[in-house]
Amino acid sequence: MTTPNAARQAKLRQSLASERLDALVVTHPPDWYYLTGFTGEAGALIVQRNKMTLVTDGRFIVQGRDETSGVRIMQHKAGLHAAVGEFLRGAGIRRAGFDPGQLTIAQHSVLRKTSGRRCKLERVEGLVAGLRKRKDAHELAQMRKAAILASEVVEHAIGLLKPGVEELEIAAEIEFQMRKRGASGPAFESIVAFGERAALPHARPTAKRLRKNELVVLDLGAILGHYCSDISRTVYVGTAPKQVKEWYKAVLEAQSAAIAAVRSGATAGDVDSAARTTLAKYKLDRFFVHSTGHGLGLEVHEDPRVARGQKTRLEPGNVITIEPGVYMAGVGGIRIEDDVAVHEDRSEILTRSPRDFIEL
Amino acid sequence: MTTPNAARQAKLRQSLASERLDALVVTHPPDWYYLTGFTGEAGALIVQRNKMTLVTDGRFIVQGRDETSGVRIMQHKAGLHAAVGEFLRGAGIRRAGFDPGQLTIAQHSVLRKTSGRRCKLERVEGLVAGLRKRKDAHELAQMRKAAILASEVVEHAIGLLKPGVEELEIAAEIEFQMRKRGASGPAFESIVAFGERAALPHARPTAKRLRKNELVVLDLGAILGHYCSDISRTVYVGTAPKQVKEWYKAVLEAQSAAIAAVRSGATAGDVDSAARTTLAKYKLDRFFVHSTGHGLGLEVHEDPRVARGQKTRLEPGNVITIEPGVYMAGVGGIRIEDDVAVHEDRSEILTRSPRDFIEL
Repeated sequence: MTTPNAARQAKLRQSLASERLDALVVTHPPDWYYLTGFTGEAGALIVQRNKMTLVTDGRFIVQGRDETSGVRIMQHKAGLHAAVGEFLRGAGIRRAGFDPGQLTIAQHSVLRKTSGRRCKLERVEGLVAGLRKRKDAHELAQMRKAAILASEVVEHAIGLLKPGVEELEIAAEIEFQMRKRGASGPAFESIVAFGERAALPHARPTAKRLRKNELVVLDLGAILGHYCSDISRTVYVGTAPKQVKEWYKAVLEAQSAAIAAVRSGATAGDVDSAARTTLAKYKLDRFFVHSTGHGLGLEVHEDPRVARGQKTRLEPGNVITIEPGVYMAGVGGIRIEDDVAVHEDRSEILTRSPRDFIEL
Repeated sequence: MTTPNAARQAKLRQSLASERLDALVVTHPPDWYYLTGFTGEAGALIVQRNKMTLVTDGRFIVQGRDETSGVRIMQHKAGLHAAVGEFLRGAGIRRAGFDPGQLTIAQHSVLRKTSGRRCKLERVEGLVAGLRKRKDAHELAQMRKAAILASEVVEHAIGLLKPGVEELEIAAEIEFQMRKRGASGPAFESIVAFGERAALPHARPTAKRLRKNELVVLDLGAILGHYCSDISRTVYVGTAPKQVKEWYKAVLEAQSAAIAAVRSGATAGDVDSAARTTLAKYKLDRFFVHSTGHGLGLEVHEDPRVARGQKTRLEPGNVITIEPGVYMAGVGGIRIEDDVAVHEDRSEILTRSPRDFIEL
């Protein structure tokens, strides 16, 4: 039987062959985890046609041996990128690929200096990211669980909202609940925004206390078995004014339209546009200040981007968020977000939490 | 009165002048927070001799206006680095600096293409990092609080250790306690490693349950008022074998020697060597597989590195961790870590937790 790792490595080696590379230097931790299972935070994986070498420092040697199979573990002492460069030179590599989005100018300079004249460093964008975009069955199973966990936690948090509670208190409880349910941690700093602060799409929780007649935006995600989830819900504490209800209805309609547009073969831009056009109908599009969503997986933001004009076509195995919102400076904001998987002939909403307007 | 931000901007502008730069493109979030107070996660700050411009996307516009003063906020729609490049070209900038450690090859390509032929992009390493290394009184006050908070939490966690508890349970409780005490979150994924797992310096918490006669390594840090702390303690559950006690004594002696070596004017390498030489006396140096410490501040790893051969001289305002350890594959590990501030004429241990060997 082929393990998921072995299947991924085989696919990557096909790309190496078609790009005529002798080696690929993988410098992004989620990429090497995907290929080998190594969870260390520092290192570089050198993938050659017939072998793999992980260069890392003393902190991760034992971990590297425990977590991987078929990977040679090499310890560097003085500097990671110099050690990688020397490895490439020593191995007589002629064409080594690297991801230009995952290597800094400073790191590239060291690599170029140490890999020698005979080694050509080639920019190869997103070779592993491209594989990671199409989740396999094992990954989808994990992501379903992570999404359900986040759904449970967002509902638990809604249950705690009452005048007087602090944003930070709710944020603490959210992350505690994630871990109690088996998450290794939050996928990002949870957003708990009360009242005016809900007008900031990326508000950080503060000591602000909830008052009656305020909107509350909750946006959270859990990491479960290395995979991320991401969900947002908005509720009103008190009896909502008519205008707030109208805004909510428009955002929900925009989200539903975008979800309906998700299907294999559609472009990511089409999905974004479905949300934006719906909001425009209500003259609310100018308050929708971010893109409709993003890919989700080992990272909370990964390919494909679901934004204006994106030509990338959705394909089976993609998992994306759909999260339109409107933000009214000085008043508050509304965002509704779910995670959606693309299949051959249908889409699947992974998150499981009601979206009806809630007044507490 | 000059605010801390204004004083930092003034110092940075002196560096701009001495580097003969018309502008510096600041692409690292902690750097722009340090200069302006902006907490958004995406953007770029362009510092010119007489003005500052923050380029960011729709999610962060309101936040940018609220959090900064004297900074022009510009919204980009299509791409951050293209917008920055166009700004540089439009403003007629001839020499723009960037940090080669904070810009990827891909981002640099876009910047070069869009900034035009007349604009020269200059690598200027660590201009803001260099300022951040010398904490001002405001920062030291915050860091004392963050360190005390972490000390309280580590002691609380030690109190929870008893056979049967899970690593993940303790990790959840650690992060919950941080937040209850006002932290905005953990500075890094807390390490809770039982028994053999303590031999992995960077173990991630698992479902493993604590058994009698195991070592426990706890390594945690909190972010309080944007500043990080970092502390490790090791305890034994049961009556420790003589050998474990000897290892602990050696690590404690190594840590004390390194702390004693911390003073203004000493090199970071001297401090590392103090720990390493002490462990060598006990023939344990080969089990000390990482460096002695690292700078601490807005980030949990920043300058100066406290590692073998580092020539950087410590100066007043530096805050570093001192964290030697020994790791025995298949058995367990011991690490003791505190945070130390460098002053003109003395050093100050910011963390406050006993270091005596504890058997539970």
